[in-house]
Amino acid sequence: MNYGIVLRILGSLLIIEAGLMLPSYFIAIFTDGPDKTPFLLTILLTAAIGLALSVRFRRVKSITAKDGLAIVTFGWLAASAMGALPLYLTGVAGYVDSLFEIVSGFTTTGATIFSEIESLPQGILFWRSFTHWIGGMGILVFTLAFLPALGIGGFQIYKAESPGPVAGKIAPRLKDTAKILYITYITITLSEVVLLMFGGMSMFDSFVHTFGTVGTGGFSSRNLSIGAYDSSYIHIVIALFMVASGVNFSLYYSFFRGKATDLFKDEEFRLYLKIIGISSIAIAIDLWLVSYHNLWYSLRDAFFQVSSIITTTGYATSDFDLWPTFSKGILFILMFVGASAGSTGGGMKVIRILVMLKLIKREIGKLFHPRAVMPIKINNKIMSNETIARINSFLALYLVLFMFSTLMVSLEQVDLITSASTVAATLGNIGPGLELVGPTLNYEFYSIPTKLWLSALMLLGRLELFTIIALIAPKNWRIDV
Amino acid sequence: MNYGIVLRILGSLLIIEAGLMLPSYFIAIFTDGPDKTPFLLTILLTAAIGLALSVRFRRVKSITAKDGLAIVTFGWLAASAMGALPLYLTGVAGYVDSLFEIVSGFTTTGATIFSEIESLPQGILFWRSFTHWIGGMGILVFTLAFLPALGIGGFQIYKAESPGPVAGKIAPRLKDTAKILYITYITITLSEVVLLMFGGMSMFDSFVHTFGTVGTGGFSSRNLSIGAYDSSYIHIVIALFMVASGVNFSLYYSFFRGKATDLFKDEEFRLYLKIIGISSIAIAIDLWLVSYHNLWYSLRDAFFQVSSIITTTGYATSDFDLWPTFSKGILFILMFVGASAGSTGGGMKVIRILVMLKLIKREIGKLFHPRAVMPIKINNKIMSNETIARINSFLALYLVLFMFSTLMVSLEQVDLITSASTVAATLGNIGPGLELVGPTLNYEFYSIPTKLWLSALMLLGRLELFTIIALIAPKNWRIDV
Repeated sequence: MNYGIVLRILGSLLIIEAGLMLPSYFIAIFTDGPDKTPFLLTILLTAAIGLALSVRFRRVKSITAKDGLAIVTFGWLAASAMGALPLYLTGVAGYVDSLFEIVSGFTTTGATIFSEIESLPQGILFWRSFTHWIGGMGILVFTLAFLPALGIGGFQIYKAESPGPVAGKIAPRLKDTAKILYITYITITLSEVVLLMFGGMSMFDSFVHTFGTVGTGGFSSRNLSIGAYDSSYIHIVIALFMVASGVNFSLYYSFFRGKATDLFKDEEFRLYLKIIGISSIAIAIDLWLVSYHNLWYSLRDAFFQVSSIITTTGYATSDFDLWPTFSKGILFILMFVGASAGSTGGGMKVIRILVMLKLIKREIGKLFHPRAVMPIKINNKIMSNETIARINSFLALYLVLFMFSTLMVSLEQVDLITSASTVAATLGNIGPGLELVGPTLNYEFYSIPTKLWLSALMLLGRLELFTIIALIAPKNWRIDV
Repeated sequence: MNYGIVLRILGSLLIIEAGLMLPSYFIAIFTDGPDKTPFLLTILLTAAIGLALSVRFRRVKSITAKDGLAIVTFGWLAASAMGALPLYLTGVAGYVDSLFEIVSGFTTTGATIFSEIESLPQGILFWRSFTHWIGGMGILVFTLAFLPALGIGGFQIYKAESPGPVAGKIAPRLKDTAKILYITYITITLSEVVLLMFGGMSMFDSFVHTFGTVGTGGFSSRNLSIGAYDSSYIHIVIALFMVASGVNFSLYYSFFRGKATDLFKDEEFRLYLKIIGISSIAIAIDLWLVSYHNLWYSLRDAFFQVSSIITTTGYATSDFDLWPTFSKGILFILMFVGASAGSTGGGMKVIRILVMLKLIKREIGKLFHPRAVMPIKINNKIMSNETIARINSFLALYLVLFMFSTLMVSLEQVDLITSASTVAATLGNIGPGLELVGPTLNYEFYSIPTKLWLSALMLLGRLELFTIIALIAPKNWRIDV
């Protein structure tokens, strides 16, 4: 590994992070909050470390894949370690709790350790939500436009960063790609802010909830999450924007270039909509018959919660932990499904589920036509056996990690649903789970080792498992399987 | 499909079943129980239907794969439908409950609908346990020695019947294979009966619990299952025989032919023992520290329960539903792992887990050696991509079926752990689950549609999913995946 270039780019990232803390600092000054000095100190420290690193190490022409993996992983870690300081220095939480909160922010998870959110200083509130927005497109994709200026190609980073198995080059050159994603992201963000303010939400809350939505994060400025707003308009606007944020962003590029039909031809997008539709209707009927006895509220809350969980956002308009088991079961399954590849969402990703379903279908077909050659096709393109094997391994590893971590968390002497949903909600970057980590509760009660492990899970989930494993696996990993 | 030959063989099966009911009938006569007449009526009816079918349809030279699948599936169904009659006619349960009980018996599941077992007539008690023994090697493998006499080759049946992905021809000719399996099975059975009687168990109970053990079924003649015996000797004998029954039986053939080293070279067997060892120790430590505070009892109960669950037997020596979450979590995971392929156990099978783990390992290896060709090897033999795809599809289908059925069962308004463990315990042919279907409780409270669905799951699990799906899938199944 080329430590020089890795540290140099980490330095640049920290300088950018210092800059990104400025809006929160201004809010702290404007509201004259206790977070004023903490933000100032953090910004100065972060910028100083960043400057030292980027001046100390020289620029190089190219980076290797392993350098790219290291930059991505350590980039998230360094940004989180510094980003946690304002919370810690303001005294609203201990350092591990602050780190958990900000890792949860940057990984767009939205799992919180705060029970009383509304009394937090405004600057802190803004900052934790803003980390969702930064994390949403990836703090590193965020800086992709800057990398060429450093004189190096950034494709390795993009490959590691892009969520999901299909990288899908939008534009031939990386810099342009980043710009297009960036413009799309900002357009969606501003549209949602305007629509929420139009619905009567304050400007501050509109920004906070937009960050949480487009980053598929889920931090709110309200104790009751979106349930604090007694407005169907706001519920529906946020639900629609959550759905939009769970779509592969490269589809928007085709869409805006006039190829609107491409969107509805995309198999992953179609399955994504189908899952949302079927799950929403199934839950709505269950709620209607078993608990709500009101069809409109059942439909509204079901659609909101399905959109929130499948996109791995984690906002809640009601305490879904009190819903009937059938509805809770669907939400629990959706925690694993996750959003589309190339979106800001987490989880296993719809495309992998699609490939898995096609594999099952093929195997049944083979019972009747044992000698037929049946390649797996996605959008009429044949998927290589290599890609299929990678997807299978990913799903298997995801489940192994889920089971192992559930056992670890269960040592806290919580019930099985709590431990399983804690892991599903952090590994899948969702936020709230069920029982003791239900939408009205939080992660504060866990011990420090568990909180650190959950932070690692959030990072593993966000970086698609193998990215980090490649980094920590021993060099002499035996290849004879 | 050749309905003639299918019905003819079903007829022969029913005649054999009528014969197999005779011991239970003799016990009913000997104890002068209320099940005397019911057994007589059932035997006469079963034999009559069997005779009518086998005389009515003529013999043919060969059968197709689809015929084989039909014989296997309808064979289990017909045997269960008739086998349920003695329970129903004696009046101890309604017909659907009786059917559930006997499907549970023949599929070696061991899930019961009886809360009060000890008051059941002795003939009935013997019969439900004997169905485990018959089902254990497969009621059809049981009749394999008879098939050549019918003038047809039975390999298709063996292929569909044999649990797990490796058929592993023990002897070149099928008839010999069946005989060898048969002799091994009887030897193990008699050894356990003798050892249990030596430990002070009555002859009747020794047979009942041996049938439950070697068939990896789990029906007991006692309300408290094996927990009714306050004897470490009995616990350990049964645990060891459960472990032995979860081993691929073709390994015993090598073993008795003097190739003892083959056993410990077999990768599936090694992983099977490793999982049992690690799980037992982990649970023992948990029990020791959290609840029992006695190392010996912790080790004994942990080893017993791990052996019982991984082999999908389902016997209990203590109410493991009251164990700490960590221990329950391990047992829940073992419900999915299951026993070895080619054993009498159910579940996903250890070999499939082994292949999955090797796939993960290979994918990590590929991160460092992207161009390396790394075939998956089991016992030094390269596994074809086709077989790997089949295993992946099986695991995926198992999980899809698990999730879907959990949602269906949750409509009974039970909690999520109850519904998930109900499905895991029936699909995996285990028997008891957690919460409302824990080891001290039973399946009686479920509605009729759920009981029928669970019966279907037991059969699907026993026949390795695809067997039945091939039969019910539409003829024009589209092969363009």
